[in-house]
Amino acid sequence: MFFASDNAGPAHPQVMQHVMDANAGYAASYGADDLMRGVEAKVREIFEAPEAAVYLVATGTAANALALACHTQPWQTVFCSPVSHIHEDECNAPEFYSSGAKLTLVPGGDKMAPDALRASIEGEESRGVHGPQRGPVSITQVTERGSVHSLEELRALTGIAQEFGLPVHLDGARFANAMVRLGCSAAEMTWKSGVDVVSFGGTKNGCMGVEAVVLFDPAKAWEFELRRKRGAHLFSKHRYLSAQMAGYLEKDLWLETARAANDACTYLTAGLRARGVAFLHEPQANMIFARFPARIHERLHAAGAKYYIWEGTLEGADADEMLAARLVCDWSITREQIDLFLSHFE
Amino acid sequence: MFFASDNAGPAHPQVMQHVMDANAGYAASYGADDLMRGVEAKVREIFEAPEAAVYLVATGTAANALALACHTQPWQTVFCSPVSHIHEDECNAPEFYSSGAKLTLVPGGDKMAPDALRASIEGEESRGVHGPQRGPVSITQVTERGSVHSLEELRALTGIAQEFGLPVHLDGARFANAMVRLGCSAAEMTWKSGVDVVSFGGTKNGCMGVEAVVLFDPAKAWEFELRRKRGAHLFSKHRYLSAQMAGYLEKDLWLETARAANDACTYLTAGLRARGVAFLHEPQANMIFARFPARIHERLHAAGAKYYIWEGTLEGADADEMLAARLVCDWSITREQIDLFLSHFE
Amino acid sequence: MFFASDNAGPAHPQVMQHVMDANAGYAASYGADDLMRGVEAKVREIFEAPEAAVYLVATGTAANALALACHTQPWQTVFCSPVSHIHEDECNAPEFYSSGAKLTLVPGGDKMAPDALRASIEGEESRGVHGPQRGPVSITQVTERGSVHSLEELRALTGIAQEFGLPVHLDGARFANAMVRLGCSAAEMTWKSGVDVVSFGGTKNGCMGVEAVVLFDPAKAWEFELRRKRGAHLFSKHRYLSAQMAGYLEKDLWLETARAANDACTYLTAGLRARGVAFLHEPQANMIFARFPARIHERLHAAGAKYYIWEGTLEGADADEMLAARLVCDWSITREQIDLFLSHFE
Amino acid sequence: MFFASDNAGPAHPQVMQHVMDANAGYAASYGADDLMRGVEAKVREIFEAPEAAVYLVATGTAANALALACHTQPWQTVFCSPVSHIHEDECNAPEFYSSGAKLTLVPGGDKMAPDALRASIEGEESRGVHGPQRGPVSITQVTERGSVHSLEELRALTGIAQEFGLPVHLDGARFANAMVRLGCSAAEMTWKSGVDVVSFGGTKNGCMGVEAVVLFDPAKAWEFELRRKRGAHLFSKHRYLSAQMAGYLEKDLWLETARAANDACTYLTAGLRARGVAFLHEPQANMIFARFPARIHERLHAAGAKYYIWEGTLEGADADEMLAARLVCDWSITREQIDLFLSHFE
Repeated sequence: MFFASDNAGPAHPQVMQHVMDANAGYAASYGADDLMRGVEAKVREIFEAPEAAVYLVATGTAANALALACHTQPWQTVFCSPVSHIHEDECNAPEFYSSGAKLTLVPGGDKMAPDALRASIEGEESRGVHGPQRGPVSITQVTERGSVHSLEELRALTGIAQEFGLPVHLDGARFANAMVRLGCSAAEMTWKSGVDVVSFGGTKNGCMGVEAVVLFDPAKAWEFELRRKRGAHLFSKHRYLSAQMAGYLEKDLWLETARAANDACTYLTAGLRARGVAFLHEPQANMIFARFPARIHERLHAAGAKYYIWEGTLEGADADEMLAARLVCDWSITREQIDLFLSHFE
Repeated sequence: MFFASDNAGPAHPQVMQHVMDANAGYAASYGADDLMRGVEAKVREIFEAPEAAVYLVATGTAANALALACHTQPWQTVFCSPVSHIHEDECNAPEFYSSGAKLTLVPGGDKMAPDALRASIEGEESRGVHGPQRGPVSITQVTERGSVHSLEELRALTGIAQEFGLPVHLDGARFANAMVRLGCSAAEMTWKSGVDVVSFGGTKNGCMGVEAVVLFDPAKAWEFELRRKRGAHLFSKHRYLSAQMAGYLEKDLWLETARAANDACTYLTAGLRARGVAFLHEPQANMIFARFPARIHERLHAAGAKYYIWEGTLEGADADEMLAARLVCDWSITREQIDLFLSHFE
Repeated sequence: MFFASDNAGPAHPQVMQHVMDANAGYAASYGADDLMRGVEAKVREIFEAPEAAVYLVATGTAANALALACHTQPWQTVFCSPVSHIHEDECNAPEFYSSGAKLTLVPGGDKMAPDALRASIEGEESRGVHGPQRGPVSITQVTERGSVHSLEELRALTGIAQEFGLPVHLDGARFANAMVRLGCSAAEMTWKSGVDVVSFGGTKNGCMGVEAVVLFDPAKAWEFELRRKRGAHLFSKHRYLSAQMAGYLEKDLWLETARAANDACTYLTAGLRARGVAFLHEPQANMIFARFPARIHERLHAAGAKYYIWEGTLEGADADEMLAARLVCDWSITREQIDLFLSHFE
Repeated sequence: MFFASDNAGPAHPQVMQHVMDANAGYAASYGADDLMRGVEAKVREIFEAPEAAVYLVATGTAANALALACHTQPWQTVFCSPVSHIHEDECNAPEFYSSGAKLTLVPGGDKMAPDALRASIEGEESRGVHGPQRGPVSITQVTERGSVHSLEELRALTGIAQEFGLPVHLDGARFANAMVRLGCSAAEMTWKSGVDVVSFGGTKNGCMGVEAVVLFDPAKAWEFELRRKRGAHLFSKHRYLSAQMAGYLEKDLWLETARAANDACTYLTAGLRARGVAFLHEPQANMIFARFPARIHERLHAAGAKYYIWEGTLEGADADEMLAARLVCDWSITREQIDLFLSHFE
């Protein structure tokens, strides 16, 4: 009953098999391995972007920080949600990699509202040289609250960015989960919707640790390579990153694992709803924020269930006190585990 | 015949087995996995340092840059060899991670001479607030030219650092190769010889991508953790780093692979010497710099041998022109491959 | 009729006289001039802080950025008002000087409310190594909206900072204006109220360009000196900074000029109030935010009055549309100018 | 007898008069003052560069660091002399302002030799993404050893830079002293000789504290403005910088003061030579490095002469031990003072 995070689950056997297969003999280092050429071609094909620059790193924070740094001057500010990963969960990595840029938190929830984004952008640069200058807009898809922007919602945000000449970054740590939800293509969810650079996640969705950064305009490619090396994110034995991504993309595994996670979440949601549980946000991908009484939390914890209490504190809570849980389904969670979890609500 | 680099070889099966074994079910993320506890204990045991702080990252540059940043203020300068990896091969990563510190290149070769180090240290801070301030001393063991500092040589350098109150970093990307050569303990080659923090390499010696940073004084432990996260080097699925290191350390595999690499190098050296080849540096670990005629280079290249021409250019060279090669033996190179390589010298 | 800013007024003749007097013969450079010794002693006396470290720089942004950098780690966040100068008007200088720290904007107005500050502080570090860590609290006195914190208000904020072990910075670009308003001592408004480091402004209050940074705990003195030099803010001909500050402090000129500015503002406020003008904030020092019809703005502009339209746009406004103005009185503004300004409201 | 530095002398009365004259009434802040328009026009005229971007800052280190930062990426290295001010006397300011770039010290003396520069440039980037990338070439004119590059020497260096597509920065803290020596125009010594950006010094040559940065290609103008503000070097009461520069340039005062300093130095040199003193470098501007016995140093010190002992230590030296002195003549030094100084050599 592990619902703590999709970064606590195992890698998919197909990914591991590619890694094992890659471990034969010698291979050119630093990304010059043959596997990487295949990965590059495959990513370009998936994104329908034959010119795109494609790079691999091992962590989502690295993908975000490097992608943003290529599009942010130190005197600029990045527009993002107050609950974005780049703001809350990267220990100032975007500020570090951009040499001291700022983040402007667009007021509101996990999804930025177009009006709020516009107001935030207009609010900056009213002070000429004195204030921070306008930098990129960063959108998280799936959001940190489990919501998915529709293509219309994406375009509303990127349209505003374009109006002001600002580049758009998509934090796609759960890219596949969003795509499966929307039933759209990777191109539609990115450059066809006005996205300039995307962090395309693999780690949370069945890999050991690999993320692709896709720059649709290859003009920044060499800068990215230098920033990656200087940030110490260029793997010498790069083949093990390439192999993971190759395994992840082969035969649409990435969509299959995302679908498994989303479906598990839908099943869990339905089960909870049937048991009268209320949700803080409407679940749309593989993440749920649900509120239920402390006594059920107690029971679940005693039974070994793992997840974060999102609001409130279990310790010292009354049995009937309502506490919110964050429940994340990874690709490997089984119906049996979910059923077991739900059984504690009876 | 792959002698280009020890980062082009495969990972050892024992390491891969640990990675496969680690891929079962859920595991706590971000270094809280059970495997890491074992790794920490094992590293402390190996280094006879029960208090040491032990962390894993995936690249040697990350290990060096983070280790140095914890011991360097932005207005300081790091004393190192002009051919050190931190100067030549990290695209300004130490400068980046230290927020703009300088590197002072101690005049001389791959090993810093004590007198030269002392003169360099004394040369700084003659200008009060105007010049850079003295920062850590960084020593590379095995050096980038394949030399190994004896314990006496290490102590001569660290003694000078201590005299000036400067911390000492050891870049041990090829730590095991040096230890095997010296026949000493890990403690002797580090804290017993005045080293404060070590980058303990795994990648080049049989892993996919893992390095440990060992801080003998744990006072900087929390700072290291924050720097690692901010640098985007904290793995969410950390178990795959832990597993590599666990496999690497089990039953002294790390010493076994290093010994294999060093022995292969000794065999290659003897073979070359027997064929009248001269060396730029006396080989002491798993790296050779040897000079031989262009026509033999041609023959080797035609036969598919991989290695770097270190001095000179093959293209357009006369048949008898002497060109230097860098030849690196990784743990997996076979006698057959070496014999085949040598056969081209006949 | 110049009400645009107190940084547009002239320097006081007494300050200029000291500068002229200082321009005789040779003087030791980089702060070793004799004048600086007198300034240091005088500042310590004024602040009743015989141990304090005292340094001069030429801009308020330098004072703030250097003072904060000495108390902020790159992975921390500075707690401040959303309308603070350090956030809105320094083009990311605090982020630059701190090597990439974040600013947390405490929700609310120009003065941080204690509850809001506490909530903001508690909100950070709930995420362990993942989120930014808690850094200093920065308070602006006089605020950017012309308000003055009472000593009780200051202590309420610094008390919370102390509770969490966080240092407190006071941006005192208009330090004297606040002191005059409160009728308290410099010590009472700083270290006796829990402030650790203060930017003590001179520029806006009668100098050409000089600010003192006063560190009540001298432990950071050397770090400050290195940061000042590295930031290129150490003057070689430092005597001209010393002389300004010496002239500024002599015979309480600094309080006299602040009183003149505040009194002018009180006079202007009374005049506006008598003419039925409403204020966005209750004026407490030398700055007013007042709302009056576009036709009066037109009249004032035609007559050459200088000030910023704070809310709304004059161009295209209806004659009766209410637009807010920011009006700042510097030490040199005359009653005649104010009367002239007011005459346009008839 | 003050020969310690040209930054210890007073400002010229004409400069001070302009500052006093500027201190009347209100003036637009942050560089929008009327005086600055005149300064900009005058600098463009002097440099025969009607398009050049012209900015003022208060310190030479700020001028250098900001000028370089506009032309250096964080992953690049700046080519400079090992005795350059940017390397030895700026406490890592260039590294700070460039977000962590490196400085490559071209082996040799105060003037870079063309061959050495070429070899240094060729030495970098042999390692692709691994090593630092080539950045600007920075030339110091007058050098820190009192030498002046001829136009031919300048062009030899800038020609190499151009060959590699690298921008050229000129540190002209003593720009006027060099120009007077060469008898050339400002344009000839800069853009006509391949210089892209110049730090045009005023402080050492008769001002209180002002330096102009002249960017011959205005494409970087806005970036410079943002970097200046973010570096906290934009003066609010900018008129006092403008006034200094206006006074400095009026009626060729800058050339007059430089000529006075150079002439004084020539007179001092001749006097010393007549007394058998040897020089470490042939004096060419306003700085001398001369060697004479300890007993004369003793005598001079007893008589109150101020200068730096450049080589050796006076304390404990034998009477006949030869110690080198650095002697700098500022614009205000008198023949009487020099004669008095020389009298101690009898």
